[in-house]
Amino acid sequence: MTLKADLYPTTDELVALRAVASGQERADLIVRGGRVQSPGTEEWLERDVIVVGRHIATLTPWGHFPTAAEEIDASGSFVVPGFIDAHLHIEYTNLTPGELARVSVPRGTTTVLTDPNAAANIWGEDGLAPLLDTGTPLRILHQVSPTAPTSDTLERGGQRVPESTVLARLAEDAAVTLGEANPFDYSEVSTARYREALVQGRRITGHTAAQTHESLWGYLAAGVSDDHNSVTVDEVLERTRLGAMITVMASSLSDNTATIFADLDKVAPALRSLCFCADDKQVTDLVDEGHIDHHIRRAIALGVDPQLAYRMATTQPAHYYRLDQVVGVLAPSRLADLLVIPDLADVRPSHVISAGTVVAQDGAPLFSNEDALPEWTRDTLHLPDDLTPATFAVRVEDGRDSVDVRAMELHHGYFKRAITTTLPVRDGAVQADVDQDMLKVVIMDRHHASGDRGIGFVRGFGLTRGALAVSMNCMNMNIAAVGTADDELLHAVRELESMGGGFVAVADGEVLARVPLPVGGVMSDAPYEQTLDLLREAHAAAAALGCPIRAPFMILSFVGLFVVPDIGLTELGLIDVGSQTFLDLVLPDTPGTAPLPD
Amino acid sequence: MTLKADLYPTTDELVALRAVASGQERADLIVRGGRVQSPGTEEWLERDVIVVGRHIATLTPWGHFPTAAEEIDASGSFVVPGFIDAHLHIEYTNLTPGELARVSVPRGTTTVLTDPNAAANIWGEDGLAPLLDTGTPLRILHQVSPTAPTSDTLERGGQRVPESTVLARLAEDAAVTLGEANPFDYSEVSTARYREALVQGRRITGHTAAQTHESLWGYLAAGVSDDHNSVTVDEVLERTRLGAMITVMASSLSDNTATIFADLDKVAPALRSLCFCADDKQVTDLVDEGHIDHHIRRAIALGVDPQLAYRMATTQPAHYYRLDQVVGVLAPSRLADLLVIPDLADVRPSHVISAGTVVAQDGAPLFSNEDALPEWTRDTLHLPDDLTPATFAVRVEDGRDSVDVRAMELHHGYFKRAITTTLPVRDGAVQADVDQDMLKVVIMDRHHASGDRGIGFVRGFGLTRGALAVSMNCMNMNIAAVGTADDELLHAVRELESMGGGFVAVADGEVLARVPLPVGGVMSDAPYEQTLDLLREAHAAAAALGCPIRAPFMILSFVGLFVVPDIGLTELGLIDVGSQTFLDLVLPDTPGTAPLPD
Repeated sequence: MTLKADLYPTTDELVALRAVASGQERADLIVRGGRVQSPGTEEWLERDVIVVGRHIATLTPWGHFPTAAEEIDASGSFVVPGFIDAHLHIEYTNLTPGELARVSVPRGTTTVLTDPNAAANIWGEDGLAPLLDTGTPLRILHQVSPTAPTSDTLERGGQRVPESTVLARLAEDAAVTLGEANPFDYSEVSTARYREALVQGRRITGHTAAQTHESLWGYLAAGVSDDHNSVTVDEVLERTRLGAMITVMASSLSDNTATIFADLDKVAPALRSLCFCADDKQVTDLVDEGHIDHHIRRAIALGVDPQLAYRMATTQPAHYYRLDQVVGVLAPSRLADLLVIPDLADVRPSHVISAGTVVAQDGAPLFSNEDALPEWTRDTLHLPDDLTPATFAVRVEDGRDSVDVRAMELHHGYFKRAITTTLPVRDGAVQADVDQDMLKVVIMDRHHASGDRGIGFVRGFGLTRGALAVSMNCMNMNIAAVGTADDELLHAVRELESMGGGFVAVADGEVLARVPLPVGGVMSDAPYEQTLDLLREAHAAAAALGCPIRAPFMILSFVGLFVVPDIGLTELGLIDVGSQTFLDLVLPDTPGTAPLPD
Repeated sequence: MTLKADLYPTTDELVALRAVASGQERADLIVRGGRVQSPGTEEWLERDVIVVGRHIATLTPWGHFPTAAEEIDASGSFVVPGFIDAHLHIEYTNLTPGELARVSVPRGTTTVLTDPNAAANIWGEDGLAPLLDTGTPLRILHQVSPTAPTSDTLERGGQRVPESTVLARLAEDAAVTLGEANPFDYSEVSTARYREALVQGRRITGHTAAQTHESLWGYLAAGVSDDHNSVTVDEVLERTRLGAMITVMASSLSDNTATIFADLDKVAPALRSLCFCADDKQVTDLVDEGHIDHHIRRAIALGVDPQLAYRMATTQPAHYYRLDQVVGVLAPSRLADLLVIPDLADVRPSHVISAGTVVAQDGAPLFSNEDALPEWTRDTLHLPDDLTPATFAVRVEDGRDSVDVRAMELHHGYFKRAITTTLPVRDGAVQADVDQDMLKVVIMDRHHASGDRGIGFVRGFGLTRGALAVSMNCMNMNIAAVGTADDELLHAVRELESMGGGFVAVADGEVLARVPLPVGGVMSDAPYEQTLDLLREAHAAAAALGCPIRAPFMILSFVGLFVVPDIGLTELGLIDVGSQTFLDLVLPDTPGTAPLPD
């Protein structure tokens, strides 16, 4: 079984579809007079869409079937399948699935492939359910997160998801892909997991993080067949010429539509191997920019043929992920998930139809979110009682008044260049240096109250005072905090603890902004409108502290990630990504820089 | 599980693929210097193909990896995946799978999707094995034949394959599609079978037999998503605009490449929804024309861009049938099934590589056929002892000296137009009339020695004397015979019986040609070269009797088929295809013609 059986027509439904399609009975719904995205040819067709129950019975020439129980006039508009997000971590929207549905379904995104790797780290194997289903019209298909933690040696992480659970989930009928894994992991365990995904007929979601040549080849040779990290046209071409599907990411971390569609002549050969994903996108950006509708708008604005731009959001992912007998294609027996689009370039559906029912109109949902959250999804932050500013100190005992340290410099969203910089030592402790935008960054265990923390220095956050903190460090969902001084860091961490997790901005003993995310410390339990307002305020507060980053809390959530070059940071210390080994933060008292290990 | 697990790399093989692709270890085989069909873009790439064991490790720029255990120089040539036949009845080649491999693999066809519906009718559920596997390099994937017989009311047929067996086979890991079914069957049983195929993630092989509008829509609404019956560009466009994949048929019955590629501008929108199949193609045509290499040659000769023509034989069926993680795509972790093609338009591989091994060179196989056939595959013809010429008489007792009868007129290969014609009555029996090429056609039970036979008249065989007979009437594998007189028919039928089935041409008490097919009465147990010679002689003999048909025994095998318009014939009688009801052969004594029932 390759997909949830209940998405296909039952035998009775097929009988009814055949009766209507063959002209024996009347349709339940006809979407009339639109220009319909052809399922098998790259054309707009003058067709009526004939719907029976949840599914499409057939497409007919305009007006061929005279009447139906319900009719929608699509004349002058275009009719396309509901959009597919090919890779989304719902946790990073800071919304629960039901609230996400209220934002995204009216904008046309009706199906998401989701990799609940944050939930896996917070709650373990039994804690995934709230991320994997909703009573709203949003269709959630599963990308099976690899084992948590990501590494047994480089982090302690949160909860554990055993390998046996991952392998079992790959056989489940809602599983579409194996979720993204560490591309630098050549262990036999990870390779055996890839093998099982292949045998189960699942795609393997790739995360190629700027790899090229041998490094990329060794990853793809495991059977990995898509990638959502391609930023440049060259990266797209290198990967598609190796058979990979590219899921163009437009997230809160970076918007790759701009770079990938920048040179259409050059990227042209790859256009039929592209689809779209949001990956990690907060409610602010979903509301301000849109979800998959944003990718389409950008592609068309940058000159992509609208027919192809819409196919990247529909037929192309549907075929690649083997969903096309169910969604993503307007053809007989498929689910009637479709959109009426008055303006191709504007990409704002006047009607969103899910399983044959109109669920949103003119941007507004016609449904409510009734999803209930179990009580155990709350109160997940656990810190020791004895934290002090000294908890975050980097001690140097040899009397130096300045030291060279290995530091990170942010570039291209969440990538981190390894640099060496000189920092002052005061009272035997290495200090952040606001003048060179070299701030202290801390990753601290929040699962086990162990007090474990890793400390480093980072350039790019631009704070001139105060600190920012989040309780959703990728992937292990520890606390990540960045600040100008140890007491500011302590204040931010304690504030997070007090609200059960979320985002916070503090300075000079004041809390400037707080975004409570009590559901696992990553998601809000409030209506999305409220989360939206709080997050806007928090972004403004971070800007007021000097932070130039558009999505500072999102970037802070990725600063530790040790599968993205060059340097990572966990609660156990600083990590060289290429070799997946620990690094010393403070360099010995020798002149010059220290290269990374080979 | 969606495909035979043993086609994917094992964990150990994946580890080895990664080690080589990442530059840590040396490859087993490098195919160097060729222009490689890009897996994800429609380009020819200057790449070396790096092979480890059975699989492709990666593609590199020319010369990137200096050495390998074995190297093949492809400079000046093109490198493409092995060709895929998307729908083949192996029985109709008149060869066993192992002999077919000796013909087709050297010509580049390395994978066939096969629907063993003849075997199902001859041997039943336990008799499919010899058709579904071979020790030769030919990869056989399964199209699960629907229940045999095709109809419980219109034929008795041969062996029975129960519905439960069909549903169970759909879950087997070698099953790729549900085999072609009767498009005029709207029963709940058939619809439930379609539902099960969808739930199991299998495609449904379509047989749309000239349907259009409501008739076509009612069939596709069952979830049927491909078609190998499209003859015209209009049929291709009508179907692809409903989401169907078209498997362009070039068989011994008809070659649809000529009509489908006749107007390239018109068919252009559908070119990415085309793949190729041979369906029913005898050894003579496989040798004289080729297998899937023939489709490609024809497409290129008719002006199709070679890149696309080769994709119709490789990537397009691989993606549609969900085989692309295994075959049909030259990409990391896929099976190393590939061809070196010196001349794109000539389509004759200098090297055929299967699972990393060279298995054919310059048109000659480097393997032998060691497949063993069980004894029970023989002696399958059973007829009563008391047959006489009168067995085939059509009696008219009312003293008329001529009667109007419903007859078939062959057109477009195996299609049969319903006509009415006047035939003489002599001694109370309706006679064939050579002058108007109106010959007697008989379908006779050969499974149960029941003596059941259906009798009709057909125009198109052109015999001026004698008879032709076959023991592979589609679908029920009864005897089909056509002749000028009842004694000629009897002679032909008895001759078939004496050789355990096959093809025969007789006249005036002489046997002019015989092609013994002792394996189930449909396949030869001899090397293909011998079958080839005998079939050529038989074709010459039929021509000498006045038959203008290129493949007279193949056409005769389809004359009874009651799922192809307008008229069918079984051992139980004449059938109206549209209504699936029996028809009277002899019309009542009233002037004018009799229309078919509505």
